[in-house]
Amino acid sequence: MPLEHQIDIRVRYSETDAMGYLHHANYLIYYEEGRTALLRAQGGNYRQMEEGGLFMVVVSLDCRYRRPAHYDDLLTLKTRISRVTPAKLEHEYKLFRGEELLAEAHSVLACVNTHGVVQRIPEEFLSDL
Amino acid sequence: MPLEHQIDIRVRYSETDAMGYLHHANYLIYYEEGRTALLRAQGGNYRQMEEGGLFMVVVSLDCRYRRPAHYDDLLTLKTRISRVTPAKLEHEYKLFRGEELLAEAHSVLACVNTHGVVQRIPEEFLSDL
Amino acid sequence: MPLEHQIDIRVRYSETDAMGYLHHANYLIYYEEGRTALLRAQGGNYRQMEEGGLFMVVVSLDCRYRRPAHYDDLLTLKTRISRVTPAKLEHEYKLFRGEELLAEAHSVLACVNTHGVVQRIPEEFLSDL
Amino acid sequence: MPLEHQIDIRVRYSETDAMGYLHHANYLIYYEEGRTALLRAQGGNYRQMEEGGLFMVVVSLDCRYRRPAHYDDLLTLKTRISRVTPAKLEHEYKLFRGEELLAEAHSVLACVNTHGVVQRIPEEFLSDL
Repeated sequence: MPLEHQIDIRVRYSETDAMGYLHHANYLIYYEEGRTALLRAQGGNYRQMEEGGLFMVVVSLDCRYRRPAHYDDLLTLKTRISRVTPAKLEHEYKLFRGEELLAEAHSVLACVNTHGVVQRIPEEFLSDL
Repeated sequence: MPLEHQIDIRVRYSETDAMGYLHHANYLIYYEEGRTALLRAQGGNYRQMEEGGLFMVVVSLDCRYRRPAHYDDLLTLKTRISRVTPAKLEHEYKLFRGEELLAEAHSVLACVNTHGVVQRIPEEFLSDL
Repeated sequence: MPLEHQIDIRVRYSETDAMGYLHHANYLIYYEEGRTALLRAQGGNYRQMEEGGLFMVVVSLDCRYRRPAHYDDLLTLKTRISRVTPAKLEHEYKLFRGEELLAEAHSVLACVNTHGVVQRIPEEFLSDL
Repeated sequence: MPLEHQIDIRVRYSETDAMGYLHHANYLIYYEEGRTALLRAQGGNYRQMEEGGLFMVVVSLDCRYRRPAHYDDLLTLKTRISRVTPAKLEHEYKLFRGEELLAEAHSVLACVNTHGVVQRIPEEFLSDL
């Protein structure tokens, strides 16, 4: 089961701001897409997990923005699981345009039920990590 | 019960695009805020309606964009209920910067339950319209 | 030169709302992505056009929302140029999940310069239409 | 000149996600609104600064999400300048619902010109800090 996954993302016009750059809040949306794609590559499906009443919520997140991205740039996002505990998953992200590193980030997600109470991450999401 | 309501909205940086304008999709978000504020001014509460299992979904929407808005512009949105039927509400919107009309729109919303089946709008939302 | 183009779009988590559906404003972002992709398929490049000081701005837009889309749905968007005049382009959009039509829309875009004054659309964007 | 400022923000429907919560990327948009409002309270105007060719770009940002926010929640955001250097500004943010702390964050912004080259922050933005 892969612990790392790579996707391509093209910057949408609506994701830019008046400075002409990809707005800094939208990096978090890309990181979320990276997580979803990594999980799918592992054979998991976050949507099914939610339908089963469990949610992975972002507990903390830190980003470093190194260089701006622009409309229509074709970017590459590398997402990696860096740590697994019974109720938490940590990811690392690196966003590139070609060889150029644009941004790096790290997040911690916790597994909760519909009442927001922390839960063990289901075995099928962890067995092979 | 008022059929018309007015709110002020300041354009956020994240809502602009590389052209330096308020991105055209974000007008719909303002219109939605206008509907929520109108309902609150009428004594209703859309959040409670949703908690009761009923939702107002947008069925159709048309906008005319006349002049652009920019970051930090302080805008005025006038929202008006233009037509009420047992399961639908129609709204009209006019967005101004001072005296200048920037955009106009019209929407139709339908009342549905959690299964997406069309329902009568609850009496308490209509009695005084 | 194609007048019609089709892309696949997967619904992001951040694009859903508390109802569990793709939020209605985000359809406009998909339509914009459809226009960009159609232009690229035609050999054009909207980014270059902007770098040359010309912009295509949305003048009007109308949508009909027929059925909701959900997180992680893989959708197909068909974008078609329906009318061309010296300074305006009209597009039609149909958004599908498999065979099922979820939404339809129509937009009018005008070509403007950096001062917002209407301009002729450059020949290279029109010659083969 | 105040180093701290407080604003109220009501959670928009479009800012929620399928979990029913304020989506975690949107906190960054609130923090940006907090910075803009703090600057305005100080007599500054970020829009004028940009018109003068200088931009404050986010260099790094870290957030802790403690409790979720929901649609229509009325939140209070406290924004504070925690450190000033010739080319950088650091801010701290605390987001509350009543007395309850929902999230905390810290950001570093750098002053750059239109070419992305780091610049001294203009005196009029710093003299009284």
